[in-house]
Amino acid sequence: MAKKEATLEKFFSPKTVAIVGVSQNPKKLGHVIFRNFFDGAFSGKYFIVNPKEKNILGQTCYPNIHSIPEKIDLALIATPAQTILDVIDDCAKKGVKHAIIISAGFEEVGNFLLRDRLKAKLDKHGIKVIGPNCLGIYDSSSLLDTLFLPPRRLERPKSGGIAFLCQSGSAGAALVDLSSENGLGFSKFISYGNAINVDEADLIDYLGSDPKTKVICLFSEGVKDGRKFMQAAQAVSKKKPIVVMKGGMTAEGSRAILSHTGALAGAPEIYKGAFRQAGVLQVDYIEDLFQIAHLLRTSIRPKGNRVQVVTNGGGFGVLSTDAIIKNGLQMAVMKESARKRLAKKFTDFAIVKNPIDLTGNGTTEWFKAALDAAIGDSNVDIILAITLYQAPLLEEDLADVLIKAHNMRKKPIIVVATGREFGKIIKPRLEKQGISVYQFPEKAVLAIKHLVDYYSLRA
Amino acid sequence: MAKKEATLEKFFSPKTVAIVGVSQNPKKLGHVIFRNFFDGAFSGKYFIVNPKEKNILGQTCYPNIHSIPEKIDLALIATPAQTILDVIDDCAKKGVKHAIIISAGFEEVGNFLLRDRLKAKLDKHGIKVIGPNCLGIYDSSSLLDTLFLPPRRLERPKSGGIAFLCQSGSAGAALVDLSSENGLGFSKFISYGNAINVDEADLIDYLGSDPKTKVICLFSEGVKDGRKFMQAAQAVSKKKPIVVMKGGMTAEGSRAILSHTGALAGAPEIYKGAFRQAGVLQVDYIEDLFQIAHLLRTSIRPKGNRVQVVTNGGGFGVLSTDAIIKNGLQMAVMKESARKRLAKKFTDFAIVKNPIDLTGNGTTEWFKAALDAAIGDSNVDIILAITLYQAPLLEEDLADVLIKAHNMRKKPIIVVATGREFGKIIKPRLEKQGISVYQFPEKAVLAIKHLVDYYSLRA
Repeated sequence: MAKKEATLEKFFSPKTVAIVGVSQNPKKLGHVIFRNFFDGAFSGKYFIVNPKEKNILGQTCYPNIHSIPEKIDLALIATPAQTILDVIDDCAKKGVKHAIIISAGFEEVGNFLLRDRLKAKLDKHGIKVIGPNCLGIYDSSSLLDTLFLPPRRLERPKSGGIAFLCQSGSAGAALVDLSSENGLGFSKFISYGNAINVDEADLIDYLGSDPKTKVICLFSEGVKDGRKFMQAAQAVSKKKPIVVMKGGMTAEGSRAILSHTGALAGAPEIYKGAFRQAGVLQVDYIEDLFQIAHLLRTSIRPKGNRVQVVTNGGGFGVLSTDAIIKNGLQMAVMKESARKRLAKKFTDFAIVKNPIDLTGNGTTEWFKAALDAAIGDSNVDIILAITLYQAPLLEEDLADVLIKAHNMRKKPIIVVATGREFGKIIKPRLEKQGISVYQFPEKAVLAIKHLVDYYSLRA
Repeated sequence: MAKKEATLEKFFSPKTVAIVGVSQNPKKLGHVIFRNFFDGAFSGKYFIVNPKEKNILGQTCYPNIHSIPEKIDLALIATPAQTILDVIDDCAKKGVKHAIIISAGFEEVGNFLLRDRLKAKLDKHGIKVIGPNCLGIYDSSSLLDTLFLPPRRLERPKSGGIAFLCQSGSAGAALVDLSSENGLGFSKFISYGNAINVDEADLIDYLGSDPKTKVICLFSEGVKDGRKFMQAAQAVSKKKPIVVMKGGMTAEGSRAILSHTGALAGAPEIYKGAFRQAGVLQVDYIEDLFQIAHLLRTSIRPKGNRVQVVTNGGGFGVLSTDAIIKNGLQMAVMKESARKRLAKKFTDFAIVKNPIDLTGNGTTEWFKAALDAAIGDSNVDIILAITLYQAPLLEEDLADVLIKAHNMRKKPIIVVATGREFGKIIKPRLEKQGISVYQFPEKAVLAIKHLVDYYSLRA
């Protein structure tokens, strides 16, 4: 295992990179990738290759890889599919052992012969390839950036604990772009396409030992080697959570996958069972992938599944309760003594059950009292705090109270904050302190369910 | 029916309003409501009532309602619960027939006796009351605004076709605040609280004839009079869609409701069946309420349930396919001749099945060709266009193509646009033209399912 990890490391923080297929035309794929290096802050050195050019933007252009005067750790290949075999020969001559093939035109368009010839050649030379038919890698530490979409179209994410593996380039790009807007941090984004000889199992295995990665997210259309995937996932899920969105959970969806990545999708029930057995959390909707990963990233381990809701809005308390029960969690029952003490503190209007409903009269002080009581009560495992800042008495100092309660690190505290102005002020403050904040109670509870599931699957 | 409609009209566009319980203290409920009138643009006249003050912010303060020198269409009551019976006597003396009681402290805190005495008094005098224990009304036409939350906390929505009925004030406020940020337009927002003698059935009945209201959304915790609700909903759902989120769909959620609004929640299965029978669309998650209403508001009637997906990203095509099947819709099968024509137009990479996957090479022109073909194909009822602007060749002019296709009004066209920069530019343009735009394919398909359901329930 240690050897394999050492091997994949070159994909993410190579000292030297050769970009093959850089044209003068700024709209061409290879040129866009080149610009990521030219304009960016990649930690290593890079060289560009194009036999038809002498230099581009003042950078020397080499006619081929083996004429580059330094050892090359990683080749980025963006030339047309029909040239790939020659480029790989060139890599072999140079002793390059790692390549990312961005180019499309293999089994996903029915060109199985080309795939097989490429695969044989890679095996022969012992070259590891991510791709083909992919965006490649964005690494927020080394700042290696092979995404051929300019930042105007795809905002690069900030650094953070989530590694995102995505077979589909377009879906990956859209999701990273959207998440970057929401301030989500990624350790690595890896679009691995057709996975010719590096697949999700290899990558999961590698990310299991990557200290920057705390949670692994995967949008998969189909696992090629089930046994290998199970082995890798089973080992890694004991160290860090793996959250999967599996496309093609219907027969029709499977057929669409066959057209898209050429992967065979397999029966949904088999995937469900296998994921569970491997300790992998499966989500039903793509939008939930990162929302759930966020809580897994930030939260301490809950002791059980008993949730205490503290809210200043009864309606959202009801929705939370429904969601807790539907997701197989339990409503905590706080000790009567604690509840009586709280009831005394609040006016007649507040309801000290579960939910504790502070009503529109709820103040920061009341929230603090309720949180303290729930943290101190051994019948409570997890606290869901619903903070509706439309209410007249809530002020920004509630954020301090929530942060303080969270920083005690005694019980997971999950926050719902729905709305505009205050949400904009308070949400980033809480998230900066590692608190997961949700717009809707049902989404918060879904994340809690996966948090509880993760530790119970791991046990 | 006509009589009842005429009656409720006074709640929404009264010519004269009396605000009872306005104090000098700007933090007090009555004062905040007063400020809505003082600072706002309400179309009628208003008077303030407080026996302890001579004037507030330069406005004459009347000692009671009957001393106001004009006829009063609507009384807004924000005085403590124990004063309400006297205030209602005062209303009766003045001949006021409509009141909104904002104040809490009735059955929701166990004060059933006060509720019964209030109800008897209202019946005796023939006074209609919205509330108690509510926020009251925001009407985007008359600009009547009884919400006691200042705009800094609760942004007022722009005018639009959605009427939103919400038992819970806090949930209603949070949802309106959030939706206003997303640019959703409302005809009316009505927080009706304990519904002492005006309930959701009366309001639905009224909104059925309100020309400004095109879709009715309801967040309900429990319907008090099932038969009355069914009658109103059955009649109105033939004219315009009613979308309901029902809280308390678990036994535990029902108990939470009992604490919150004192309403009995009833069995979930009974609600499900009754909603369906009444042509009411039920959503499972509060966040879906307006997303679904938006499409019902904007879309023409689909001829059937066969959906053609046009995408420039294969992964989202797969997710759409899964969602279409899971939601009981059908994947359209376009005529072979049309598909052959399209395939000729596109490169080898594009896949002309369903989904039509234009791939990352997709251009505005290709989208246009695919949309035209789908619009012209009698095997297609609905078109789902997935536009991922991260792809290098897509430009803003795709918005023009989508708008043109939509404006032909031949088939419903639903758009998915995931991401940041381009989404920000294009989404508002499309929405301004009445196109529903979603961030995720599954949400778009869920909305399509409800669109199809609405017309099939109505038939």
